[in-house]
Amino acid sequence: MPERRAAAILTVGTELTTGLRVDTNTARIAAECVAAGFRVSEAVTVADDAGVIAASIARLVRANDLVVVTGGLGPTHDDLTREAASLALDLPLRPDPDIVERLQAVADRHKEGAAREQVLRQALVLEGARVLQPTTGTAPGQVVRTGACTLVLLPGPPSEMLPMLHEVLGERRETADPVVLKCARITESDAQMRAQSALAAHPGVDLTVLASPALVDVVLLDAGAGRDGLVDAAHAVALALGEACYSMDGASLAEAVVRLARATFRTVATAESCTGGMVAAAITDVPGASDVFAGGVVAYSNALKTALLGIPEATLAAHGAVSRETAEAMARGAQALGADAAVATTGIAGPGGGTPEKPVGLVWVAVAVGETTEAYELRLHGDRDGVRRRATVHALDLLRLRLERS
Amino acid sequence: MPERRAAAILTVGTELTTGLRVDTNTARIAAECVAAGFRVSEAVTVADDAGVIAASIARLVRANDLVVVTGGLGPTHDDLTREAASLALDLPLRPDPDIVERLQAVADRHKEGAAREQVLRQALVLEGARVLQPTTGTAPGQVVRTGACTLVLLPGPPSEMLPMLHEVLGERRETADPVVLKCARITESDAQMRAQSALAAHPGVDLTVLASPALVDVVLLDAGAGRDGLVDAAHAVALALGEACYSMDGASLAEAVVRLARATFRTVATAESCTGGMVAAAITDVPGASDVFAGGVVAYSNALKTALLGIPEATLAAHGAVSRETAEAMARGAQALGADAAVATTGIAGPGGGTPEKPVGLVWVAVAVGETTEAYELRLHGDRDGVRRRATVHALDLLRLRLERS
Repeated sequence: MPERRAAAILTVGTELTTGLRVDTNTARIAAECVAAGFRVSEAVTVADDAGVIAASIARLVRANDLVVVTGGLGPTHDDLTREAASLALDLPLRPDPDIVERLQAVADRHKEGAAREQVLRQALVLEGARVLQPTTGTAPGQVVRTGACTLVLLPGPPSEMLPMLHEVLGERRETADPVVLKCARITESDAQMRAQSALAAHPGVDLTVLASPALVDVVLLDAGAGRDGLVDAAHAVALALGEACYSMDGASLAEAVVRLARATFRTVATAESCTGGMVAAAITDVPGASDVFAGGVVAYSNALKTALLGIPEATLAAHGAVSRETAEAMARGAQALGADAAVATTGIAGPGGGTPEKPVGLVWVAVAVGETTEAYELRLHGDRDGVRRRATVHALDLLRLRLERS
Repeated sequence: MPERRAAAILTVGTELTTGLRVDTNTARIAAECVAAGFRVSEAVTVADDAGVIAASIARLVRANDLVVVTGGLGPTHDDLTREAASLALDLPLRPDPDIVERLQAVADRHKEGAAREQVLRQALVLEGARVLQPTTGTAPGQVVRTGACTLVLLPGPPSEMLPMLHEVLGERRETADPVVLKCARITESDAQMRAQSALAAHPGVDLTVLASPALVDVVLLDAGAGRDGLVDAAHAVALALGEACYSMDGASLAEAVVRLARATFRTVATAESCTGGMVAAAITDVPGASDVFAGGVVAYSNALKTALLGIPEATLAAHGAVSRETAEAMARGAQALGADAAVATTGIAGPGGGTPEKPVGLVWVAVAVGETTEAYELRLHGDRDGVRRRATVHALDLLRLRLERS
């Protein structure tokens, strides 16, 4: 196998060199570069300083076949990447007429001449560069050849940067796309050991396991197996992971729930206390969720639990808001709003509100499908945000399993 | 003011240059360097390759007063930072007797000689280096002077790295913490220009403006002004930003709403369609939100809008679910659940569902406070997630402004 071509990544922004923001672009660009057959020789971050940006570009284009720069293409005074690249490559900047035309409407919204001029700075393009049209945002990307190197300038916001990155690197892919087996409610080491055993019979596949709260991604990378070999391996690993695996095509847990509900012609509803709307927000994040999602109630106060979900006051008085009985009554109350299935959460997310019997992290999830309601007691760790995220994952996953089984 | 001393950060790991992990160490180290009076000239990431690491160290120590390296100090074959630093500085590695003694117990757990040797590699220290004892983990850190530069080697895991970083830099804090003025519903360039004018009378303050959907952070950095100067500048900038600025102490928009409701003894409720629970989730993310948040309804189907919020079917039929009239009725319906104030959202988040009269991105927000209900028509851009996030920010911010004014 020949030596891979070298790529470098340069991210620009004083918010990065002062630690105000974590740089997430480098990881995404690195992954795309690797998939396109490059090795990343180095990733560099510098402040919004034209001289420093220019010096870095000059150094990196000498030593690499590809240099991807993100950030500093916006309209403000500290967006200096265009000028820095012009300086480094000794290429003049010229306004691109198509971009100028498109930006004129944005510019005209500003009364001040200085503000209008700022907007139009985004139309400046290096001589000879190919322009990457923005699909969101206003700043275009640029691709220019310099000596043996291709220099790519992309905007910083990921939603603007990623489509352009795919446009530039998408066609150059040399290895099969990784397959990600998404799992819920399984430990990282358990997932890794099960996947590793399954992969013993599938050479040419590299394994990486990435964990986030209550979720684990089992990533299979093409290391010679090719597309078909990777798919065979993925099926073997999926079998080993069992019902912990909810998707292998990138679908989120909420997407898996929406698909399953749609496929079985059932509607779902939610009743949330400790997750405060996060379960409903996850479901409604899925395009087309309205086909299967009737709606939900965030019953934070006991008064609303009674008024909207019909929880008997006696149940709340006897067992408390965080109890099996209340969770089950919430799920049945949400179902009674007019859905075939419902999921309910009630728990103590903290930091306050815990007691020795009902500590922070205690969460009850109940799922009602048809005539049957089942409740699950969870002891979750983490801070308020961590408990709420984990509770949301558990609620969606328990709803998924009940929809699969009944 | 003298030029700040220059610091560089080098993070080592093939998991970073292949995009499998996001580098969070750089942001933490950068923030500490800035607080200790350095400017970060660049942050570099390279793979586990001794030659590449050595070349980067050699380049960075020539150009900086401080170089902080993380990663590659562990026991395995791809932990090569010690050897690379030895190569770059031409300093021999010697086993540190104290570290050897401490690691011996760990090493003796391994039966194989090779595994024992691997553990003991972590005791190798550059000649003349000060050893930083690990508080967690097994690998020590090292500090060594080379020419005009101080080179610091730290382990990669944040829990091991951070205590050593504080040990090295903690006493050197020279600048005040940055002040962040958080704003909603203002453009990045508008915020920047207003802040810049206000700062004309406040020297010694650096300005950075960071945008995310519908939100802008105006960040003031101490560049000589000191703590008092920075606070004075922040007040001047807050005045210039006007009601767009919702906090200057780090509070989120939802926190600002919760504080304001608490301070004015009012409870709030939500009625959501297109945001699908995101407004309620943001409010309930705030610890203690239960003091002021009664609850909310995610009324996705028209049937639930009528059943839970009492929207007249005639309103829905005459004006449609996405209309001023429905938004206002939703806000009043949520208020009627038993709250002093309520906010409602209804709109078309896409990708489907748009028409020429009601395109994707059209969102109505209504706020009811006391007897008065006001509605706001928004035309938001972005994909489904972008529209929903922006709608959530607008809803929270319009609720904040109404709570402030009435």
